[in-house]
Amino acid sequence: EIVAGLSELLDEGEPAPLPAAGLTITITAGPTREALDPVRYLSNHSSGKMGYALASEAAALGARVRLISGPVALPTPPGVERIDVESALQMQGAAEAALQDSQVFIGCAAVADFRPAAVAEHKLKKQVGEEQMQVHLIRNPDIIAGIAEQSQARRANGQPAPLVVGFAAETRDVLRYARDKLTRKRLDMIVANDVSTPGLGFGSDSNAATLVWRHPGQANDRLHEQAIAACPKIALARAILERALA
Amino acid sequence: EIVAGLSELLDEGEPAPLPAAGLTITITAGPTREALDPVRYLSNHSSGKMGYALASEAAALGARVRLISGPVALPTPPGVERIDVESALQMQGAAEAALQDSQVFIGCAAVADFRPAAVAEHKLKKQVGEEQMQVHLIRNPDIIAGIAEQSQARRANGQPAPLVVGFAAETRDVLRYARDKLTRKRLDMIVANDVSTPGLGFGSDSNAATLVWRHPGQANDRLHEQAIAACPKIALARAILERALA
Repeated sequence: EIVAGLSELLDEGEPAPLPAAGLTITITAGPTREALDPVRYLSNHSSGKMGYALASEAAALGARVRLISGPVALPTPPGVERIDVESALQMQGAAEAALQDSQVFIGCAAVADFRPAAVAEHKLKKQVGEEQMQVHLIRNPDIIAGIAEQSQARRANGQPAPLVVGFAAETRDVLRYARDKLTRKRLDMIVANDVSTPGLGFGSDSNAATLVWRHPGQANDRLHEQAIAACPKIALARAILERALA
Repeated sequence: EIVAGLSELLDEGEPAPLPAAGLTITITAGPTREALDPVRYLSNHSSGKMGYALASEAAALGARVRLISGPVALPTPPGVERIDVESALQMQGAAEAALQDSQVFIGCAAVADFRPAAVAEHKLKKQVGEEQMQVHLIRNPDIIAGIAEQSQARRANGQPAPLVVGFAAETRDVLRYARDKLTRKRLDMIVANDVSTPGLGFGSDSNAATLVWRHPGQANDRLHEQAIAACPKIALARAILERALA
């Protein structure tokens, strides 16, 4: 009887369930590396910090978090399931495998748009006197657009499908590009940020952004926007997740 | 009198001077990054570990160490003066400024052979329907060959000049490429290592190498060689420095 009473007391003391409890959130983060040969690659300045902040916050909100990560120098946040990839094609494979059981998919990785058309098996030797070189690049798949397309198709069929969130990192006309990207790629939400501001964005611990979203099923001309002033990436991550879970 | 006696005792107790005491050793390390636009770059898999091991060992041997480093995720070894650079052109500038007061110059950086001919001021936008892209690359300066040339010229004029040590990281025909590189670039010594061996070379903590050298003033057909079996990079660094200081 005492034990039963104690148990009731403890039950009353239990906190409300966390807002993302029971949800699976898949996040891509970091750059991709596109090999030219065994030693050379094409990449970009993404540090992975924004995606890792999202993973950390999503786990803190109670979600099961799957983090698909390009090569970065960051520790895995506690409680997060991390899948390491290098190239855009590898990231696409991991992302598509994660689509079916995710309720939220956030494409935060800076995926290389292009990759070398051919990967040399051995290190390319420069030739004496060779002063120029042409690298032939081909388009990488647009991972987030593919995920959004599959998500929309599942939704249209009445199947469960993740809310799809993308990022637009630009150095000019940020909002215009972001709205266009949201519509063209059929995303549910996009995080528009200006990476040309010193101290913000790539490599930095802070970020400023505008969230642009539409409610699933709403027309593309009914966009909502919310500006978020410069803040630590972890705070921006929280704001993005709160909006995505609203 | 007691103080004088004590001083004599202490003098007797002093260790022999360190083998590199009074010498300045300049070392380049890590990859270079060659910008395509504000976010994209071309780079390579150099972790910087070998160059940093050399810097650490050179400092331990008593040298003044100047470490010209591309972007890596490594702490600066104690007592080492580190100069951070990104591109090959920046690394060349720092290397040439260091030539005059160095007794040993070790080019361990994996300098990008080519850089984009033009750097876009704003992030390149991919165009809808654009499935291919050509990147026009131009040859970067050969930093170590330039340093070796200037060093040989100084030596010929009776001026002090550094011993110049290069690296050859190859995936095949390692020794053949290394001997050719030593001769063609007029280096005093080259460290030939096979980066195709799993667990050795790029990104690894271990390395195996063959040192190839000629004595300053000796003909190119009088090459000496010393194979060093797989060992921690710090041990290889010590072997390279012992050979360079011999």
